[in-house]
Amino acid sequence: MLIVDHPSAMHRWSAAARARGETIAFVPTMGYLHEGHLSLLREGRRRGKQLVASIFVNPLQFGPAEDLDRYPRDPYGDEKKCRACGTDVLFCPDPRAMYPAAFQTRVRVGELASGLCGASRPGHFDGVATVVLKLFQLVRPTVALFGLKDYQQFQVIRRMALDFDLDTEVLGLPTVREPDGLAMSSRNAYLSAEERAQAVVLSESLALAERLLADGERDPAIVQARVIARIQARPLAAIDYVWVVDAATLQPLAGPIARPVLLALAVRFGATRLIDNRVLLADPITPPGPAPAATR
Amino acid sequence: MLIVDHPSAMHRWSAAARARGETIAFVPTMGYLHEGHLSLLREGRRRGKQLVASIFVNPLQFGPAEDLDRYPRDPYGDEKKCRACGTDVLFCPDPRAMYPAAFQTRVRVGELASGLCGASRPGHFDGVATVVLKLFQLVRPTVALFGLKDYQQFQVIRRMALDFDLDTEVLGLPTVREPDGLAMSSRNAYLSAEERAQAVVLSESLALAERLLADGERDPAIVQARVIARIQARPLAAIDYVWVVDAATLQPLAGPIARPVLLALAVRFGATRLIDNRVLLADPITPPGPAPAATR
Repeated sequence: MLIVDHPSAMHRWSAAARARGETIAFVPTMGYLHEGHLSLLREGRRRGKQLVASIFVNPLQFGPAEDLDRYPRDPYGDEKKCRACGTDVLFCPDPRAMYPAAFQTRVRVGELASGLCGASRPGHFDGVATVVLKLFQLVRPTVALFGLKDYQQFQVIRRMALDFDLDTEVLGLPTVREPDGLAMSSRNAYLSAEERAQAVVLSESLALAERLLADGERDPAIVQARVIARIQARPLAAIDYVWVVDAATLQPLAGPIARPVLLALAVRFGATRLIDNRVLLADPITPPGPAPAATR
Repeated sequence: MLIVDHPSAMHRWSAAARARGETIAFVPTMGYLHEGHLSLLREGRRRGKQLVASIFVNPLQFGPAEDLDRYPRDPYGDEKKCRACGTDVLFCPDPRAMYPAAFQTRVRVGELASGLCGASRPGHFDGVATVVLKLFQLVRPTVALFGLKDYQQFQVIRRMALDFDLDTEVLGLPTVREPDGLAMSSRNAYLSAEERAQAVVLSESLALAERLLADGERDPAIVQARVIARIQARPLAAIDYVWVVDAATLQPLAGPIARPVLLALAVRFGATRLIDNRVLLADPITPPGPAPAATR
């Protein structure tokens, strides 16, 4: 596994791989890798002649009061895990190389980012889209893999790839969960034992909503109210948002649930903010089928 | 010369050319080509194995009260001129293919776009940068050529290419002028005979400023005042702005002129807005030297 730490070296590597006609699968991460990331790496391994992972805690996507400085890091563990998944190149750029002093151009994302985490974290998705655009230009991936735990992020990036005519297929993979249902997240490391126990209410709420829909409930306000009540029954949980939105546009519904919707949750436990989501009624994102295994 | 009208066809063509290891020179235009554009095409011809020109009147960079609908067009004349300059591919996309209904992601440019035309035309450079990013992704140029008549545009695009790690060299070429000094512009076609005669005051003002600097004047306010007085002596001229700014940052000067500065002018004649500029004291942009002629 090649470890690359400068953008220009990454660029030279990908230009050479592309010139050899090789496909490149790419998994961008902020490190502190868990099973969710590893599922992306394993799928990427099957889809690309070359597999590139990046670890970059992107300052542009953190608000001033957020957890940039204390975001968990484990460079040696991450390196080992990437190697075990058959990663060819691990790209770990320095923030000063990615954002030199004169840096000033950004991506401004649109309506897909107006609600949910976009409303709670102003500028967050502009920062995400900007770094992903930069990483795509440096890595030049044929396909890039993202976890659907960050459903809004996935939609925003897929839209950017279409809007900017990027030469990269953007693929979303199912959320990987702990045995009790909690979605895997690097931020789970922040939770106390008590918070961890109560955090299972997120996935329980998704299951509750699924049952309500299965029983014929179609009023988004009632689904939201039932989910809110369920979460509020956990004393350590503080709701940031609970929304039933159109799964394609991520906008609130004007009437009853008639098409696929996304139930999206953001809940704080102490200083830790967790998110989870489920598409209800139908899943507009086809999970990746068996891809032709790349010859290494 | 191949004429391509759909983004996906353009993308297929450039992917194939890149796979053959060919260099691609690119001249993006809004059409109604004049000698300024042709100088870019001729230089592009020397710099790329393939030469691509685009003609696209980009709705995103026009304000609601601007001249999008009446921007001059001459598709047959443009085609002939491109052919005569040795263009390999002429890309003329439809606005609906470039901006489908769900389009929502844009480039947001920074400090370089805050003054001059960026102040007079809100959102203009965001629109320019967005379409140029899209065109770069579709054409995948090794080098892209821009006229320095639009100096701020050149700086904004060069900065975007750096900030987004684009794989394209952004090159600025000297302004081409009419015999009396008026900078070539598609918008010159709007001028009445009388306006056309008075429009020479723009280039006269640049020469005046150059003489002032040569005579030792270093106060930007005095240079601006002298230029304003010169332009105001023409009854049909209405000043939009006259600025002496730092040539690298395009920001107003805090003190006397000590480094290269840009004198930038925007002046209206009736409904027609003309711009011109000159770098004074020194030219930080090296004019392109003799490039190795590409083997066709």
